[in-house]
Amino acid sequence: MSNPGYFVSFEGGDGSGKTTQARLLGDWLGAATGREVVVTREPGGTTLGLEVRRLVLHSEDMDPRTEALLYAADRAHHVASLVRPALERGAVVVTDRYLDSSVAYQSGGRELSEQEVEDLSLWAVQGLLPDVTVLLDVDLETSRARMARDLDRLERVDDAFRQRTRDAYLRRAAADPARWAVVDARGTVEEIQAAVRAAVAERLAVPDAVEAAPRDAGA
Amino acid sequence: MSNPGYFVSFEGGDGSGKTTQARLLGDWLGAATGREVVVTREPGGTTLGLEVRRLVLHSEDMDPRTEALLYAADRAHHVASLVRPALERGAVVVTDRYLDSSVAYQSGGRELSEQEVEDLSLWAVQGLLPDVTVLLDVDLETSRARMARDLDRLERVDDAFRQRTRDAYLRRAAADPARWAVVDARGTVEEIQAAVRAAVAERLAVPDAVEAAPRDAGA
Repeated sequence: MSNPGYFVSFEGGDGSGKTTQARLLGDWLGAATGREVVVTREPGGTTLGLEVRRLVLHSEDMDPRTEALLYAADRAHHVASLVRPALERGAVVVTDRYLDSSVAYQSGGRELSEQEVEDLSLWAVQGLLPDVTVLLDVDLETSRARMARDLDRLERVDDAFRQRTRDAYLRRAAADPARWAVVDARGTVEEIQAAVRAAVAERLAVPDAVEAAPRDAGA
Repeated sequence: MSNPGYFVSFEGGDGSGKTTQARLLGDWLGAATGREVVVTREPGGTTLGLEVRRLVLHSEDMDPRTEALLYAADRAHHVASLVRPALERGAVVVTDRYLDSSVAYQSGGRELSEQEVEDLSLWAVQGLLPDVTVLLDVDLETSRARMARDLDRLERVDDAFRQRTRDAYLRRAAADPARWAVVDARGTVEEIQAAVRAAVAERLAVPDAVEAAPRDAGA
């Protein structure tokens, strides 16, 4: 990494708590480092990205390559217009999903391989990888129970898909332990955030700083 | 080519007459072969494509990779949803611009090479190339004179850009004469159409059929 910022991505299935944990980690890293913090997301972290996201979600029968290219376009724009400039200013950037989501989700079908989805994303972002990627890992049973609170989602996602995605994430994490931190996401928000901080602090060598309590951390 | 249809693309600068010539060739090929004819365009040949085109044209300061990925997404969708199914039905597909436009235009800047823009498009369409690509070639002076009728356009495009694009087209045509037919686009609509038909008929081995006069062929 040749830029002076910190770049952290969160990955995991729907309902794994990425959005909450990303925000809490951003607050803590801001306090701990005194740096500007940018908490963002993919897809849809920019105005263009929101439009691209709408296209993907509202188009029926989109073929896998079109979908992969639209997500890659969203990612290219997100990095070029927001992530990279922030990192070059020395900011902490925390993103809720990044290229590993594409690899885990889009290569789940028969048509595209993990390698080609990854190559496409790496081309889109000129090779920019996070310093740390936190995988919020939840077993299938917990994931199913959480989703059951939201019937719309439960109907859309089947167990085989959840299993395939989780396997892809765990395989990627095992292959690159220097970048990945796998955190068990079954505890309370505070327990999970503590584990996330420990993992990120270790990898980024964040100065052992302000013990800012997580805000809104009630379960 | 393993499909039973005919696939023809038109390339050239703005004002070279691609839209008119593509329509006339489609009419003629339909009459000459008795086949279904689909005349289409890129970008924007599908509903999704129109939205992608709008995004590209209306977004300011879009970086070259985002733009290339959006055009590639449009192309992937165009081929998967319209071009390939038509070719598999045995139709004649005539498209006003295809992947060579991306290579000639998007690699014109410093950042992207012709090879990477071409690789991206070929991935998007799973390697589908036209049976014939007609380059409507116009020298710079003629092009400038035609554009002068449309002041909006004249202001946007400079000579260096036109020259670079033309050079890229001519280089690609010279490198693959089996696919490309270079047609001098300075004559009347009828003269150009006659040259287009001769070039296409020779390459596609179209039965020497109905001499359908071009409709609306007045200059």
